[in-house]
Amino acid sequence: MTTNTHWLYENFHHDSYSTGIAIKRKLHSEQSQYQKIEVFETKSFGNLLTLDGKTMVCDLDEFVYHEVMAHIPYAVLPKCESVLIIGGGDGGIVRELVKHKSIKQIDLVEIDERVVRVCQEFFPDCTSGLSDKRVTTHFADGFVFIDNVLRDKLLYDLVIVDSTDPEDFASQLFTSDFYGKVKRILAPHGILMNQTENPFLDTYGIKNIYANLREHFKNVHSFSAPMLIYPGVFWTFGFSSMESIPTEFNIAHVNELQTFESTLKWYNTNWHQGCFRLSNFHKNIIGI
Amino acid sequence: MTTNTHWLYENFHHDSYSTGIAIKRKLHSEQSQYQKIEVFETKSFGNLLTLDGKTMVCDLDEFVYHEVMAHIPYAVLPKCESVLIIGGGDGGIVRELVKHKSIKQIDLVEIDERVVRVCQEFFPDCTSGLSDKRVTTHFADGFVFIDNVLRDKLLYDLVIVDSTDPEDFASQLFTSDFYGKVKRILAPHGILMNQTENPFLDTYGIKNIYANLREHFKNVHSFSAPMLIYPGVFWTFGFSSMESIPTEFNIAHVNELQTFESTLKWYNTNWHQGCFRLSNFHKNIIGI
Repeated sequence: MTTNTHWLYENFHHDSYSTGIAIKRKLHSEQSQYQKIEVFETKSFGNLLTLDGKTMVCDLDEFVYHEVMAHIPYAVLPKCESVLIIGGGDGGIVRELVKHKSIKQIDLVEIDERVVRVCQEFFPDCTSGLSDKRVTTHFADGFVFIDNVLRDKLLYDLVIVDSTDPEDFASQLFTSDFYGKVKRILAPHGILMNQTENPFLDTYGIKNIYANLREHFKNVHSFSAPMLIYPGVFWTFGFSSMESIPTEFNIAHVNELQTFESTLKWYNTNWHQGCFRLSNFHKNIIGI
Repeated sequence: MTTNTHWLYENFHHDSYSTGIAIKRKLHSEQSQYQKIEVFETKSFGNLLTLDGKTMVCDLDEFVYHEVMAHIPYAVLPKCESVLIIGGGDGGIVRELVKHKSIKQIDLVEIDERVVRVCQEFFPDCTSGLSDKRVTTHFADGFVFIDNVLRDKLLYDLVIVDSTDPEDFASQLFTSDFYGKVKRILAPHGILMNQTENPFLDTYGIKNIYANLREHFKNVHSFSAPMLIYPGVFWTFGFSSMESIPTEFNIAHVNELQTFESTLKWYNTNWHQGCFRLSNFHKNIIGI
């Protein structure tokens, strides 16, 4: 990424494709223990967070990612009382989850405390759920945290991996070894949700991500939703489980969702029912 | 758009957002009667056509646009013998339509003959259907062509508007006046398909496009499909009709489609059934 007076450019897929976002000014910049954290005021899209120069969260479109990650599994799960989020230091998924009264415990495991603190300052809406009394924020490595959960023999109803791309310290979050551990901390009805990159710019091997998921989960599904600030916009997500089926609703949860569905910006249960019907392109890239 | 040695940059939405495609070399450049026509060999995405500096067709993703525009209405129409395409000089929609044996007549109305000739040279796969004996290519203004059709009292089963953005000479293809004329040259079961821009970068007013369609058509629906080379990728399309419902299939047509569905790169009837289930964001932008 290069920054000039007006544009924040980022190049993708071995320098084949580039996007630029026009900025008004830089609001914040620091080097944390893990990465460079910067916040910009954009020309038209609100505030934008970058980590090591990669766009992560933007006021314009953060609702898409956060709503689908939270509400799709909730609509399906027969019971959803405990949730573990790996990454997700912007708090957006937590903001969506705390809308559900039957959720009793949310553990957010973010490796970099500075991401949370910076987001609390510059993305107050995104982070608004972090003060909910059901939420515990752990500043820890997700792998280590899960090992502790395994040792304590705890089970979650839902695990959401809200990670950066499969490189540097996030790459282990896309391995078969990691997915195997996640399965062991999930209840039998549990669901693993994760982000699985853009198939038009398949830099990291999406087919491998899904093959790794299938080594451990019986039901591995995928859907897409657009993230304007991510490389190539067309973003895919994984839904993995042993028992839960992505289009078989828990009626009680859906009834609850529908009481505030009109206030959501992206998700609704009708869209949910359609989004797992994949194009040939999408099926091919995930290897089905 | 600015061109340097390696990148083709294009700025969108009042210079808020930019995309760049890495190029190897320029293959062709000319100023036609209507526009500047250029073809580039890209680094990773095959050949790319630009008109007045705007990306139009690329080997990488052209299948998405062309397959959805052709096969969605075909799967639904009770009869589909005659089709009119306004624009679409790259021939991609024609290539998809000629796969259907029951289509007897395809009129392609492209204002700029040079677009067709340049595409025949640099996009041989896209243009491969233009030599089919059921296809007549007319180098004419779409508005004038439709006036002649009205005068001759001809009716089409399907009209597809494959246009550039709503500016310059293409802007009239998004007006209520134009949609009213299209309705009058459609059979009662007929369908109008058109491209309706990206809602994240809503430069031209998508709500107005759909309001104009609703002035004339009883059933106005929308869906999305990703076009990597278009501004913001998340691309919307309109489906307008008086009788035909977008998810009520003609079984005979679907049976025919399914004989070659596995050879298509994007479209399948299962995806078709899901794509009209819209997110709240999509519903809001089209005014429903």
